[in-house]
Amino acid sequence: MSPEVHPGLEGVVAAETQLSSVDGLAGELIIAGFPLAELAPNATAEETIYLLWNGQLPNASQLSELQQALASQRVLSPATLDLLRAVAAEKASTMDALRMAAGSLISTDDPDADAVRVVAQLPTMVATYWRLRQGQAPLEPRTDLSHAANYLYMLHGSAPTPQQVRALETYLNTVVDHGLNASTFTARVITSTGSDLISAVVGAVGALKGPLHGGAPGPALDMVFAIGKPENAEPYLRQKLESGERLMGFGHRVYKVRDPRADVLALAADKLFEGAGDSSFYDLVRHVEETAIALLAEYKPGRRLQTNVEFYTAFLLHGLDLPTDLFTPTFTIGRAAGWIAHCFEQRATGRLIRPQSVYVGPHNRTWTPLDER
Amino acid sequence: MSPEVHPGLEGVVAAETQLSSVDGLAGELIIAGFPLAELAPNATAEETIYLLWNGQLPNASQLSELQQALASQRVLSPATLDLLRAVAAEKASTMDALRMAAGSLISTDDPDADAVRVVAQLPTMVATYWRLRQGQAPLEPRTDLSHAANYLYMLHGSAPTPQQVRALETYLNTVVDHGLNASTFTARVITSTGSDLISAVVGAVGALKGPLHGGAPGPALDMVFAIGKPENAEPYLRQKLESGERLMGFGHRVYKVRDPRADVLALAADKLFEGAGDSSFYDLVRHVEETAIALLAEYKPGRRLQTNVEFYTAFLLHGLDLPTDLFTPTFTIGRAAGWIAHCFEQRATGRLIRPQSVYVGPHNRTWTPLDER
Repeated sequence: MSPEVHPGLEGVVAAETQLSSVDGLAGELIIAGFPLAELAPNATAEETIYLLWNGQLPNASQLSELQQALASQRVLSPATLDLLRAVAAEKASTMDALRMAAGSLISTDDPDADAVRVVAQLPTMVATYWRLRQGQAPLEPRTDLSHAANYLYMLHGSAPTPQQVRALETYLNTVVDHGLNASTFTARVITSTGSDLISAVVGAVGALKGPLHGGAPGPALDMVFAIGKPENAEPYLRQKLESGERLMGFGHRVYKVRDPRADVLALAADKLFEGAGDSSFYDLVRHVEETAIALLAEYKPGRRLQTNVEFYTAFLLHGLDLPTDLFTPTFTIGRAAGWIAHCFEQRATGRLIRPQSVYVGPHNRTWTPLDER
Repeated sequence: MSPEVHPGLEGVVAAETQLSSVDGLAGELIIAGFPLAELAPNATAEETIYLLWNGQLPNASQLSELQQALASQRVLSPATLDLLRAVAAEKASTMDALRMAAGSLISTDDPDADAVRVVAQLPTMVATYWRLRQGQAPLEPRTDLSHAANYLYMLHGSAPTPQQVRALETYLNTVVDHGLNASTFTARVITSTGSDLISAVVGAVGALKGPLHGGAPGPALDMVFAIGKPENAEPYLRQKLESGERLMGFGHRVYKVRDPRADVLALAADKLFEGAGDSSFYDLVRHVEETAIALLAEYKPGRRLQTNVEFYTAFLLHGLDLPTDLFTPTFTIGRAAGWIAHCFEQRATGRLIRPQSVYVGPHNRTWTPLDER
């Protein structure tokens, strides 16, 4: 009797978690007990990190302690900085550079300290590498800014507005955790061997790099730019669909209704563009979305293709003046806090993750010397 | 209805493979169609690498091509070397340094080229770091030596004997693959997102670092040193068992009979010590093993605790003058070829590995402002 094979482990429940609940049919995402829409627009990045790592929101002194711990750990070591300079000369991708820089951290015996250090340094790594790639001098991180504000400062060289910080925090909160996605699962498998937290995060960054995981918010943005003005939306999208092309930013493996993250990010993007005093681009985006949904229902009836997280990610991050090359690295900065929470949870189980494989190769081969092959 | 949870994925078949078959009840290990005892003592490291990556043994010109490709890629980049120097100053563990150095490789769009480069460089990374930690100047790799011979040369500074090379090759072949162990599974999960081969290997090194995976051959060696001479074996081991201690080098999660790898390594160690003209230490080891098996049957009847791979790994690598700190890094050098073969196999499926989690946390939490917490 052959054992049942679960390629992709689809539908196999590999862990219990208190961190997030993804209900794709209901379009519901719970983060540590909070409906996403309740948490994401309210919490600072630090509050969400504390929530995931401790199971509850921090009080003022707990929050202050975490803020200070993160702020004090932002500066890269000379070894990490040297590595980023060397990699920039080779023009490696930002995700490759981020994986390498995260991997240059030496792990300690203290998972809590490693957790703070890696979360504190990921934004510095991304911003430093990005400026090096642009031929600009990297900026020193500031200790007087929040996690999100400091990232924007290090990228752009000026302190962000409160609206910009709020928009980025809502984004980071929105992507902080999402069940046992492949990068989170990678982090749990590595942790399950008793390995250290840095190893788990580096493995997870490597998994997130893959196009089947990290996704591609860039093309949705390119599409809206190509459309340019509302009256072009319908003919442009119709032509795409007539020629059998996929519309980027719609459809998701799990969500069969509107991705709850899209709503939260749409609202955040709305406020961001409104705060900047020009909603015309945002209005175009909404029009493109509505037109696309209507046309997808017409061309692909029954498929229920809905707006996914990538669509509004693109416009929110674009509204923060982030280039598309930084979309996946910024996603990584957000998700890292979730990975680490899963590492803590996995570590508490004390259990090795070790599935089986079934052998389908030849048997009883015998050795043939080289001169007889 | 609650879904069935498979913590640790124990017994869940997550992949089909043509690379290895582990039958723990029969004590059988097949490597790409060959019973382990048929392949391991006969093949060079390069032949086994070719076998796993291509499904069959190479002919003379195929083998020569792989040998030259590996030999030509052994030199570390300045960035990797600088990183190892910086890490040596921090006295990081050899496995930490190996993960960091492997992570400093920039991935390309060519998985075959990445595969050769990372396999060629892992021995250089280990030997370079080891010499740096000892305050010795690293040695340049030699292109005229085989994969195994060059590793021993870079560690010790002199070309090894044919017996030493044969012993190391038998070891590397023996540990090259072993089903869906946690590091191999990590490599497959990372690859499944479409990510690159370097990311997969770095993640796998991180998983192998964990004490529940990489194991600890060192303590078995320490035990035999502490015993010192044959007549001490029984009283020493009896006292350990009376006080409830575990005997290191015995028992395995999968194998319920003698680990087939132990036999192959025992034979290789026998030849190595015999070739070196002094079998007294090896005779002691055999006596300790026999005594331990007899006493385990007496103290733990029904548990069927048998010699595992770690026991003879310790004596074989000790016979090659490798310090215990290099046991797991040397295991990594062997296993990396298997990881990469699994990456190729996973890539061919085109499938994302993405299990489910079940949420067991709170629901419907509502936001509480900071000043009310």
